[in-house]
Amino acid sequence: MRVAVVEGDGIGKEVIPAAVEVLDVFGLPIEKVPLELGYGKWEKCGVAIDDDDLDVLKSCDCVLFGAITTPADPNYKSVLLTIRKELDMYANIRPIKPLPGVTGVTGKSDFDFVIVRENTEGMYSSIEEIHDDVAYTKRVVSRKGSERIAKSACKLAKERRNDLMIVHKSNVLKSDTLFLDVCRETARSEGVDHRDMLVDAMAYSLMTYPERYDVVVTTNLFGDILSDMSAALVGSLGLAPSANIGDKYAFFEPVHGSGPDIAGKGIANPIAAILSMKMMLEWMGYQKEADLVEEAVGKSILEKITTPDLGGDASTIEVGRAIANYIKDM
Amino acid sequence: MRVAVVEGDGIGKEVIPAAVEVLDVFGLPIEKVPLELGYGKWEKCGVAIDDDDLDVLKSCDCVLFGAITTPADPNYKSVLLTIRKELDMYANIRPIKPLPGVTGVTGKSDFDFVIVRENTEGMYSSIEEIHDDVAYTKRVVSRKGSERIAKSACKLAKERRNDLMIVHKSNVLKSDTLFLDVCRETARSEGVDHRDMLVDAMAYSLMTYPERYDVVVTTNLFGDILSDMSAALVGSLGLAPSANIGDKYAFFEPVHGSGPDIAGKGIANPIAAILSMKMMLEWMGYQKEADLVEEAVGKSILEKITTPDLGGDASTIEVGRAIANYIKDM
Ligand SMILES: CC(C)[C@H](C(=O)O)[C@@H](O)C(=O)O
Ligand SMILES: CC(C)[C@H](C(=O)O)[C@@H](O)C(=O)O
Repeated sequence: MRVAVVEGDGIGKEVIPAAVEVLDVFGLPIEKVPLELGYGKWEKCGVAIDDDDLDVLKSCDCVLFGAITTPADPNYKSVLLTIRKELDMYANIRPIKPLPGVTGVTGKSDFDFVIVRENTEGMYSSIEEIHDDVAYTKRVVSRKGSERIAKSACKLAKERRNDLMIVHKSNVLKSDTLFLDVCRETARSEGVDHRDMLVDAMAYSLMTYPERYDVVVTTNLFGDILSDMSAALVGSLGLAPSANIGDKYAFFEPVHGSGPDIAGKGIANPIAAILSMKMMLEWMGYQKEADLVEEAVGKSILEKITTPDLGGDASTIEVGRAIANYIKDM
Repeated sequence: MRVAVVEGDGIGKEVIPAAVEVLDVFGLPIEKVPLELGYGKWEKCGVAIDDDDLDVLKSCDCVLFGAITTPADPNYKSVLLTIRKELDMYANIRPIKPLPGVTGVTGKSDFDFVIVRENTEGMYSSIEEIHDDVAYTKRVVSRKGSERIAKSACKLAKERRNDLMIVHKSNVLKSDTLFLDVCRETARSEGVDHRDMLVDAMAYSLMTYPERYDVVVTTNLFGDILSDMSAALVGSLGLAPSANIGDKYAFFEPVHGSGPDIAGKGIANPIAAILSMKMMLEWMGYQKEADLVEEAVGKSILEKITTPDLGGDASTIEVGRAIANYIKDM
């Protein structure tokens, strides 16, 4: 297996080394291919990602990714969005599951759901028309795009509690009627129990009754919003991992950004990156190793080897190292 | 003053009479014009709102509105969206403020912010193109639309803590660059302190640090999602009021929908409707009366005259009547 390792910018440069430290413990046959992308590269070369970079990424099986700073400059092409599109990684999987000993803003810990976010279309079409007095963005919902994300969600639901919630805004967006219909048809033909809810009601309900949900499938921007919001249930954006999965490639990244306010201080929480790496291990078929990572992460929290956001005083790399050491002892 | 009173469907028929019961206590020179709109009318007449109805609405100064059931039927024209558009009520004002004795999902009660949602464009343009295999919705952001909502938000900020948060997704939607720029310019020229945040980060931050915000201005659909989500902070969708305000007309409605699951049982919480009526009193200039309503609502909760969602066993109308009686005694 070849893994492109992209630290990116800001705290990406801190959390990825911590995740790699944990990965290395297993001594698996994984070739790491470091790649510089992002704002740093843009400042040096005037480009944040180029065709050669894409070739490198495509020569790998998957990517372990930190975070990237997107400047306001309209000429800057988003690296993340470029990669998701070019490698056609259409399913963004964001598990929302409490960690032992940490509770989020609601104090609840009896939930475990996954947001499956369509990752290639919707409001992220980049089809825009910008005039001086008005600007348009075209939201695109295709049958093909809806079908493949619905299938990913159903596959996951069957491995879990067989309960699919389809989230949309079809009372306002007729484009979501297509999404809803396709998701329903797919769930029916896959034998997955399903319901649906409007995105506004769902935002309320996820915060109030997170225990009611198993797999939540939705369009791109709704998934973006609901998954950041749900990180509040878990306790911190620094704890939320994600996977972007396509038919050929996969890409693993913490939900958080490059954290310019805390970058360089060594206080960024590496757990989101480590759990993203854990999702990579699962994707590769190393389920046993993935389980060990999850267990060791839990242990680090219970033993209070944590970064300041969780009340501890350990540095990013110290947390990574502690988790690596727990695994060695397991 | 002429007020169109639209109960609408479902629990709209229960909460509006309760709100009217409270309004009537004051004996103000307000003429109430009852109007039937919505699903019920649609079933009888094949139309949920017609031109005559719009004429009636336009002959009034404002509207007190319950809730309307929107069926999946694609021929059904949304009453709410029609009214907002036809009466050009571009500012949707949604205060998020805890009530005494009720805490929401986070247990916090040290916050008090208002979401100012653009109400006429964005994803609600209704410019759509529906094909069999793909569907498009056009998101529209205009300078004029952004300017007037920014002004409303700045006006409110100046009456409050002079702190404006602009919420957008300009890292993905170039159409939001226009929105952001216009909001910034407006705030600058109005002398209002302002910051901005991406909508996904804001969803997380509002749930985690609601005390940090004063006035939050955003585009239509983001406002829709964030305001329902924020109702979880207050404790219940049954407590969240809203006002839709234009240059000529205004429209007051609870944030909740028609609640088909609980309709007809007399258990719907009328507080959102009563607080919406309170916003109507404020808009009319009856500030003293508005303050009394808020005080009486607080009293009803502290004395546990509440509907089951807040743990009580009073009916919708009993809560309304109790609040009316408190006011009589004040
Ligand atoms: C950085 C940004 C373009 C990205 C997105 O909107 O998808 C991020 O918020 C995410 O959720 O991965
Ligand atoms: C019913 C629906 C059309 C409406 C909206 O999306 O604006 C509602 O959710 C609201 O927030 O008032």
